[in-house]
Amino acid sequence: MNAPDTLAREKFADLLALTREPFPASRKAYIPGQLHPELRVPVRDIALTNGETVSVYDTSGPYTDATAVIDVRKGLPSVRSAWIEGRGDVEHYQGRPPVALDDGQKSDDAARLAALRAEAAALQRQPLRAKSGANVTQMHYAKKGIITPEMEFVAIRENGKREWMAQYQQDAAREQRLMGNPLGASIPKIITPEFVRDEVARGRAIIPANINHPEVEPMAIGRNFLVKINANIGNSAVTSSIEEEVEKLVWSIRWGADNVMDLSTGKNIHTTRDWIVRNSPVPIGTVPIYQALEKVGGIAEDLTWEIFRDTLVEQAEQGVDYFTIHAGIRLAYIHLTANRRTGIVSRGGSIMAKWCMAHHRESFLYEHFEDICDIMKQYDVAFSLGDGLRPGCASDANDEAQFAELHTLGELTQVAWKHDVQTMIEGPGHVPMHMIQANMTEQLKTCHEAPFYTLGPLTIDIAPGYDHIASAIGAAMIGWMGTAMLCYVTPKEHLGLPDRDDVKQGIIAYKIAAHAADVAKGHPGARARDDALSQARFDFRWQDQFNLGLDPETAKEYHDETLPKDAAKVAHFCSMCGPKFCSMKITQEVRDFAAQKGLAEAQALEQGLHAKAEEFQQGGGSLYVPIKRVD
Amino acid sequence: MNAPDTLAREKFADLLALTREPFPASRKAYIPGQLHPELRVPVRDIALTNGETVSVYDTSGPYTDATAVIDVRKGLPSVRSAWIEGRGDVEHYQGRPPVALDDGQKSDDAARLAALRAEAAALQRQPLRAKSGANVTQMHYAKKGIITPEMEFVAIRENGKREWMAQYQQDAAREQRLMGNPLGASIPKIITPEFVRDEVARGRAIIPANINHPEVEPMAIGRNFLVKINANIGNSAVTSSIEEEVEKLVWSIRWGADNVMDLSTGKNIHTTRDWIVRNSPVPIGTVPIYQALEKVGGIAEDLTWEIFRDTLVEQAEQGVDYFTIHAGIRLAYIHLTANRRTGIVSRGGSIMAKWCMAHHRESFLYEHFEDICDIMKQYDVAFSLGDGLRPGCASDANDEAQFAELHTLGELTQVAWKHDVQTMIEGPGHVPMHMIQANMTEQLKTCHEAPFYTLGPLTIDIAPGYDHIASAIGAAMIGWMGTAMLCYVTPKEHLGLPDRDDVKQGIIAYKIAAHAADVAKGHPGARARDDALSQARFDFRWQDQFNLGLDPETAKEYHDETLPKDAAKVAHFCSMCGPKFCSMKITQEVRDFAAQKGLAEAQALEQGLHAKAEEFQQGGGSLYVPIKRVD
Repeated sequence: MNAPDTLAREKFADLLALTREPFPASRKAYIPGQLHPELRVPVRDIALTNGETVSVYDTSGPYTDATAVIDVRKGLPSVRSAWIEGRGDVEHYQGRPPVALDDGQKSDDAARLAALRAEAAALQRQPLRAKSGANVTQMHYAKKGIITPEMEFVAIRENGKREWMAQYQQDAAREQRLMGNPLGASIPKIITPEFVRDEVARGRAIIPANINHPEVEPMAIGRNFLVKINANIGNSAVTSSIEEEVEKLVWSIRWGADNVMDLSTGKNIHTTRDWIVRNSPVPIGTVPIYQALEKVGGIAEDLTWEIFRDTLVEQAEQGVDYFTIHAGIRLAYIHLTANRRTGIVSRGGSIMAKWCMAHHRESFLYEHFEDICDIMKQYDVAFSLGDGLRPGCASDANDEAQFAELHTLGELTQVAWKHDVQTMIEGPGHVPMHMIQANMTEQLKTCHEAPFYTLGPLTIDIAPGYDHIASAIGAAMIGWMGTAMLCYVTPKEHLGLPDRDDVKQGIIAYKIAAHAADVAKGHPGARARDDALSQARFDFRWQDQFNLGLDPETAKEYHDETLPKDAAKVAHFCSMCGPKFCSMKITQEVRDFAAQKGLAEAQALEQGLHAKAEEFQQGGGSLYVPIKRVD
Repeated sequence: MNAPDTLAREKFADLLALTREPFPASRKAYIPGQLHPELRVPVRDIALTNGETVSVYDTSGPYTDATAVIDVRKGLPSVRSAWIEGRGDVEHYQGRPPVALDDGQKSDDAARLAALRAEAAALQRQPLRAKSGANVTQMHYAKKGIITPEMEFVAIRENGKREWMAQYQQDAAREQRLMGNPLGASIPKIITPEFVRDEVARGRAIIPANINHPEVEPMAIGRNFLVKINANIGNSAVTSSIEEEVEKLVWSIRWGADNVMDLSTGKNIHTTRDWIVRNSPVPIGTVPIYQALEKVGGIAEDLTWEIFRDTLVEQAEQGVDYFTIHAGIRLAYIHLTANRRTGIVSRGGSIMAKWCMAHHRESFLYEHFEDICDIMKQYDVAFSLGDGLRPGCASDANDEAQFAELHTLGELTQVAWKHDVQTMIEGPGHVPMHMIQANMTEQLKTCHEAPFYTLGPLTIDIAPGYDHIASAIGAAMIGWMGTAMLCYVTPKEHLGLPDRDDVKQGIIAYKIAAHAADVAKGHPGARARDDALSQARFDFRWQDQFNLGLDPETAKEYHDETLPKDAAKVAHFCSMCGPKFCSMKITQEVRDFAAQKGLAEAQALEQGLHAKAEEFQQGGGSLYVPIKRVD
């Protein structure tokens, strides 16, 4: 191992140590289950300076638990193992024998690769699969009426600790005024385990949780739950260490990624995936065709069903929770894209288009769809049915090609459900604001309310460098309208590969979009955090305002740029109006005024003034005094 | 003058030189008038590498005209003087005698202030006003059926050069599919000068253009025009030079601010304003009560109508184009805010609330509203009727206080219109997505379609440090629904004072929101730029993609981080998929495929496959082959 490598390792080890720091004033807490008392559902409790505690949804896993001992070479604790094995329908087996090609044709030399693999030898697990004839999907249990620990976990997680919210929800008139508009969603006040089961059974939600990913903290993707976000990561050209790859994951979930997709296409792809899955408390998704393509040296037409199938099994055994599979792009749809402004922009979509054209035959993904289902249900891998024909610009939005594929995805959803395989549907992409609703409506109708998982959508095309913003607008809207999970877009979209800060910028923009959607839908647990933050702002509890925000560090840093002193963080003013005059200070005087006068007098006053105003209006401006000229 | 001062001056002189650089591949061009042939309506022509020219709306004024000679100590050329004087209804007069207090009680010492004033002595103009009995507002002319040069200027500016768009609008089916949803707006295909006149006459649009601001390039604010954005600037604690103040303005309009509000509250406020207005090609707005408050040493209850009135005249003579006046916050409404979570957050609103409470009487702004109109119409200053009771958090959105004031603003609009004074209405602030439409509907109804000018709105409260994004979501939506101008929000909102980069971030976020709204409304000139950019992206014309974006520098910089070499800017691939495999490259193969096969064959193929698929579905999955187990 050469010197720069060691350097990189140290640098990333440092970063990892850094991102393990709990958020300011925050402490990890766990809520136990009732049906399944052994559950430990994580939340982040934020201690405010006024003695209150605000408890929020927490995607960051054990990494922000100060008491957790973590060794990335061993992986996270297997919280789900007992549940999975307790169901009695799985078996350990030797698994598919690994081959050199699993790490691609571009892998490091054998010695280096062996070293990389050895580095995390303790991560190897003997895979599980369903016993012969068994089906181990959450959907299968749900349809049989079984409430799994995963379902109760999700219910508790969606509710969080609601007790602290009560004080922000006391005013009935205000609650009435602010009542959300669910636009067809049916979000109960409290999510019960039975509600989760029912949503999973009818296919309106999924819980991605491969039986070979026991480290996962279960979460739900469905329109009647909190809107989730996904971040994409991929391996670097030069993979230097396990710490570096795990750090990308930890960084993403720290800022709020509910799911992470590993879109690696480079070297050592199998080994890297081992590292990621074993250290991930969130579901991991992949696009298996990317790895399959690596195995055939990047030549799309050389792909075969056998190679693809083998790759699915390989990844299912590793514990990938959902697969993007572009089975809806059929030979007959390809010509529909010929007159598009930007043709086919999905990488998976173009691989399959190229294959279909080269062989002049129907997609093997479509033809083998039931074979694929048969693999998925042995591991509980969920489908993320890919939209290979999604528009690549506003001008191609909602066109014939896009909707033809969506229609096929709806058909395939029903095939998947026949096998009790959990399924979500991927969506665009690029859609101007006024066409977003049509998109959502079409998806709900065509795909039978299977969860929608959209990329953005970007509302305009002229913002390269700022596409996280152009797309957060569309994401917030489609989230309100019914999308269950939003795939983030970073500032580097269309331009290059995101770095650490770009990933954070993308995630924060999407947490904003998801939360805006939750508030608009009227999710009963969403708005209280806004209220707590606004109350802190009004009370000049600056630290609380920072700590309740999505990014406490940046908020504090911005504040300190103008008023750096500690005194300013307890000062009853801010940099906008200065100490002498402060609009929030005046409001206290308004309250004193209203209290002093009494409401009765204030109302009488109001009536009197209304009368006066009417008189004024009717008199055509009796108060008018001709202006005195000033020359 | 001490050394650091000189340093600062040099630094900002450098910055100003920098922001005078035209955008890459861009050239300022001017379109002449037809009714008024002397008009020179600015556009920015972007030369693409394929020989096309894309022409876009340009707010940056003469600063980006490589041929313009600019001296900030003399001010910009007075493009409107001949039009204003040619109408024969104005007179020069000596003007209100300046007093020391105009620069506030906190001004620099007399010697320093004298030096600052002397620095730009050439900026002084003898003010104009309407001749006795005359009314010089654009609305007055419009109602009389006169199409002023300002109106024709606006018409030409809104249309821009449409010729280049034709190639992007040839496909009738595509245009039909993408047709906007105007949600009640009535945007004609081509804006005629007569249409502008009519919109101004009925109060649905304003052209802020004080007769004492002849430097302005006229623009319109109205829902049937392009959505505009406003940026706020304010003087620094230490005003070092005229260059520094002008630089803030130039920086804002460079990135696309259509209007700039000078919210200075510090030292030398009058002198700074002279510098800004004389060097501004965009309308300048102010909140006169801020300066009036400075004159009474910051004690709200010491404000009087006389001091306020004098301040209006002072600023009208300087050439301010619109005044935010919080005349809708009445004594009787104040107690309605007592139970709010964050009370009164508008600075102007709280000043007036404090005044009303202290004196226990009706607001002098409300009582003297017709007096104010009388001043406005002598100079053509437009009203921006302030929303002093706007919500300061989501929880206070659309409440009784907010709508009570909005109702009064509607009454006052009619009073203003009686005097032919141009009027727009300021709006919130903080509104969750699902309550935005109600807000817009109420404003349109209550205020008789007078242009709405909203701050955001912010859709959530938990994003301090990212409120430009949280509010861009709301801004895009309300812009689509009918708001005419969006007041930007920077990342520092709620935390501190924006620096140069924050201003840019805020403006870009709002250009995105405004453009997204224009596209959604179906503005006939909006979408072509997106198409041109997407076409460039598809054709791998990287430089064109950067140059057509809102921020070419950042786009190029991001691209170069991953692929720095010049060769990469002409390469037919990007960093996402690499040279070997590229989805866009494949699309060309699709086109060849579609062309080769011929549409007829493709259609036959499609039908054949449909039949096959049906057979497949009906057969319940006849292609199903039991999976071979791999243990």
